[in-house]
Amino acid sequence: MSFTPPTEEQVFALRISAGIAELASHARFAAASDDLIEAVVAGAGQFAAGEWAPLNRIGDSEGARLAEGGVSLPEGFAAAYRAYVEAGWGGMAAPEDQGGQGLPLALAIAAFENLGTANMAFSLLPMLTLGAIEALVHHGSAAQQALYLPKIVTGEWSGTMNLTEPQAGSDVGALRTTATPIATGPHAGKYRIAGTKIFITWGEHELTRNIIHLLLARTPGAPAGSKGISLFIVPKFHVEPDGTLGARNDLRAVGLEHKLGIHASPTCVMSYGDNGECIGELVGEECGGLRAMFTMMNHARINVGAQGVQIAERALQQAGAYARERVQSARAGAGDKTPVAIVEHPDVRRMLLRMRALTEGARALLYYTAGQVDRGTLGDSAAHRRADLLVPLVKAWCTDIGVEVASLGIQVHGGMGFIEETGAAQHLRDARIAPIYEGTNGIQAADLVTRKLGMEGGGVLFALLDEIAADADDVMALADLCKDCKAIGEWMGSAASLDDKLAGSVPFLAMCASAIAGWQLLRQARAAKATGGDSLARAKDVVSRYFLDHLVPEARGLKQAAIGGAGLLYALSAEELAR
Amino acid sequence: MSFTPPTEEQVFALRISAGIAELASHARFAAASDDLIEAVVAGAGQFAAGEWAPLNRIGDSEGARLAEGGVSLPEGFAAAYRAYVEAGWGGMAAPEDQGGQGLPLALAIAAFENLGTANMAFSLLPMLTLGAIEALVHHGSAAQQALYLPKIVTGEWSGTMNLTEPQAGSDVGALRTTATPIATGPHAGKYRIAGTKIFITWGEHELTRNIIHLLLARTPGAPAGSKGISLFIVPKFHVEPDGTLGARNDLRAVGLEHKLGIHASPTCVMSYGDNGECIGELVGEECGGLRAMFTMMNHARINVGAQGVQIAERALQQAGAYARERVQSARAGAGDKTPVAIVEHPDVRRMLLRMRALTEGARALLYYTAGQVDRGTLGDSAAHRRADLLVPLVKAWCTDIGVEVASLGIQVHGGMGFIEETGAAQHLRDARIAPIYEGTNGIQAADLVTRKLGMEGGGVLFALLDEIAADADDVMALADLCKDCKAIGEWMGSAASLDDKLAGSVPFLAMCASAIAGWQLLRQARAAKATGGDSLARAKDVVSRYFLDHLVPEARGLKQAAIGGAGLLYALSAEELAR
Repeated sequence: MSFTPPTEEQVFALRISAGIAELASHARFAAASDDLIEAVVAGAGQFAAGEWAPLNRIGDSEGARLAEGGVSLPEGFAAAYRAYVEAGWGGMAAPEDQGGQGLPLALAIAAFENLGTANMAFSLLPMLTLGAIEALVHHGSAAQQALYLPKIVTGEWSGTMNLTEPQAGSDVGALRTTATPIATGPHAGKYRIAGTKIFITWGEHELTRNIIHLLLARTPGAPAGSKGISLFIVPKFHVEPDGTLGARNDLRAVGLEHKLGIHASPTCVMSYGDNGECIGELVGEECGGLRAMFTMMNHARINVGAQGVQIAERALQQAGAYARERVQSARAGAGDKTPVAIVEHPDVRRMLLRMRALTEGARALLYYTAGQVDRGTLGDSAAHRRADLLVPLVKAWCTDIGVEVASLGIQVHGGMGFIEETGAAQHLRDARIAPIYEGTNGIQAADLVTRKLGMEGGGVLFALLDEIAADADDVMALADLCKDCKAIGEWMGSAASLDDKLAGSVPFLAMCASAIAGWQLLRQARAAKATGGDSLARAKDVVSRYFLDHLVPEARGLKQAAIGGAGLLYALSAEELAR
Repeated sequence: MSFTPPTEEQVFALRISAGIAELASHARFAAASDDLIEAVVAGAGQFAAGEWAPLNRIGDSEGARLAEGGVSLPEGFAAAYRAYVEAGWGGMAAPEDQGGQGLPLALAIAAFENLGTANMAFSLLPMLTLGAIEALVHHGSAAQQALYLPKIVTGEWSGTMNLTEPQAGSDVGALRTTATPIATGPHAGKYRIAGTKIFITWGEHELTRNIIHLLLARTPGAPAGSKGISLFIVPKFHVEPDGTLGARNDLRAVGLEHKLGIHASPTCVMSYGDNGECIGELVGEECGGLRAMFTMMNHARINVGAQGVQIAERALQQAGAYARERVQSARAGAGDKTPVAIVEHPDVRRMLLRMRALTEGARALLYYTAGQVDRGTLGDSAAHRRADLLVPLVKAWCTDIGVEVASLGIQVHGGMGFIEETGAAQHLRDARIAPIYEGTNGIQAADLVTRKLGMEGGGVLFALLDEIAADADDVMALADLCKDCKAIGEWMGSAASLDDKLAGSVPFLAMCASAIAGWQLLRQARAAKATGGDSLARAKDVVSRYFLDHLVPEARGLKQAAIGGAGLLYALSAEELAR
């Protein structure tokens, strides 16, 4: 089945949680007028539902395949990608001087969301390309920007991120791919790349005329670990100074992973320099790769968090439609024994309302964070730091929600949920990658407690919690959750050991994210009420109350786990624990 | 990878939580001596790990296939099933006078557990057969028992349950398959069966010489709904009075479902009476089918709950092994920058300890419940009622744990968890059916609050909670959870409307189950400590403390959802809720 773009919900959340009107009052984002916002979000929704959603199921069942000489996608993907490029969706948030539209990230996230809701596996192709744009905009030389960016921004060429190697996953500093400077000849000044990268999303395909691989490698004599890695541009086809395509570079996909989900996204094993002739060019300075990687990853993490929202929205819609159609049993206790649609049964309603509260809560956190990123771009340093704090929350919490909502979606379907043709199971299979890639959710939580919490001695988090508590007013559960978060944050900033902090990091992250999402839903409900008693106001009232009355107390139940410390975790030896 | 049967843990849990020694003091279960218990559990573990576990992956990747004339399984299944029959595992809990061994259910559950841990999809074949045994033991005539049971008990023939039809899932009373009495001819006294059944587990295969379908159908003039359904024996091959196989009955598998998991278990669309010649015989009386169905389902529900434990054990072992092997990053904050096995990182430990606490907690609840069933069999009516109370808890809570632990197992693996060859993803795919079949977990929760809670005016639950609270002693979180459960139970028994009860049923079930599991783990830890300071005592201390300190407070966080009532669920129309 397809999906209905949730345009009204998206635009409303952009207004209230991203504060998009206020963003548009700045000259830089002046284009983001009310009309444009609605047109962009609605247009992206229509495009995604019309062109990309119909390919979601065939993408899953047939998947990407490695054939002689390349990777093939099911029929329809090439045309749907061309349509995406032609409609100009690629460069929404890219700077105008680089051929982009310079729109706020919040708006781009909302528009792009529809592509992922339509077809998560497919949307990884433009998503990785956005990461490449970010890296080149911030770290590429003017010449590199001029040579590569125009065609990447439009989506005519795609981009990838090449980090992982078999021995270097979360520990990217352990990578061994080498980059050796070339002193003479036609490639003088460039580097010879040699190594194998794994888990390279859309590493090879035929949907774009060129693929610009951004690759981390180690130069001769570089220090060990993450301080010794450098970033390189390694194009599939060499690009001549005039921008035309030259010879094939010495790189290829040697394998595709057989995965639980996102089957239409080719996850490649890439081999660089089989014949000693793989040429790359340095981005930024030698050994400056980590910083560039974080630029890419910071954006990628928000985008992966967005995938949690995307798949949750799709699963919610599918389950809701099924629950309204499927007739089974009379209402319990009703005099009338006529079977009703299962949406009328209390526990099915509970599941649907839970799914919706989680989905809209996650979207609220996502848009709020994107709005903070945009304010940071405008020079608001407090917003910039707040965005830094929020990125791991968005990545981890929203992706966990994607999995939970997709799983609930299966449950709403009953036995039909377990049958692949229904499509509900695909959402769970697709969603399950998001808590893993771009830094596992455990690594996000570690980032929160070891880096982000420490900003301004905890002040960045505490200021946010104070703001929430002040807004919470008579919503006691939310005020109490803020108090809990602050107490835990203070303990982590003082008495807790590093192990204690890490031991409690995952539940602490969930508590903080729940507080912020609950706050944003509360703000949305209040704003909707203030604008009149229409159906949006009624829905936002119910959804926010469910979140605050049910999900916020659940988050408070995590407190003991957050402050329990590491002692119990190490009370058994590794052999005793993992018997 | 294979698995290591957790024999010590199983035998210990049988002793403490099922009270197996006390059971063996009764003449009926006298065979269940200490030595025999250990021999049976260890023997089943060895058999399962040696013969069935190696087929788990091929069963998933190749799956059951519908071919001309029947269903085929991957190579190895037929021999592994023969080995199961020859070793005599089939009749453990069946009565001795029916060819079984008459062992306690608790022991049979523990032994059988290893088959499911080894190969969940395969274990459904004997599991469904156990349901058929139950139905015939309790509701079959002496002649039917004599004719069918001997070969079903050994496993030479298998059994199925035929309930579901496209329009009759949770609402089994909506079924339309007909059974028309035959007045004359060779089949006089029997019935002509006509209809289509779906979701029939192991409905067709070649691993046994005959398949005994137990099927619900409607006789002419029977009342509408569940009061009008009758149970029939419908064999694949007719059985002659001397027990030899006669002609093929008029029934066949017309389709196999393409499912998320349990691929080796053929889920059949069964067509009965295509040629008007499908013959079945009535079990019990006309319109007595519902009672017989509940006999089958009650046992099936415990067995499905056991599947949660089974898959959790497998996922736990696999994640533990990976975490001890996979080397990545140094310990945070350690002076030594040498990478360590990821089991040394705090959040990986947290995940593993959580997986273990959930798995052992679920097993404790399962064995405790089986022990109560056994006491009921011995004539202890209080234990019988307590078992009735516990069955929905076992089914729902243990299967939710199966899904959570399997999902955590993927997370422990990082990127490798998403790659099918690793095997971790299969556990999640397999586990996901268990919260759905044999009555969705929502239906289990409805059973708890609408039927089981009402037994003795709430007294059956309250007596159990009082017993736990008395044992909890200084474990405040557990005592508080008991108080919460009692308060909710009392509210549900008095002020709450039926809708309110149903609205809070799922979180209430989780709270009650957590209290009982936490109690049993506490009892296990105390007993292990009392027997000396060995490694089991240390492990049980840590696991029970993790459960009581972290998971019990989490369960308390569900209180608001349990007592929130149904108002919010119906505040939006179905159209507004499922937009």
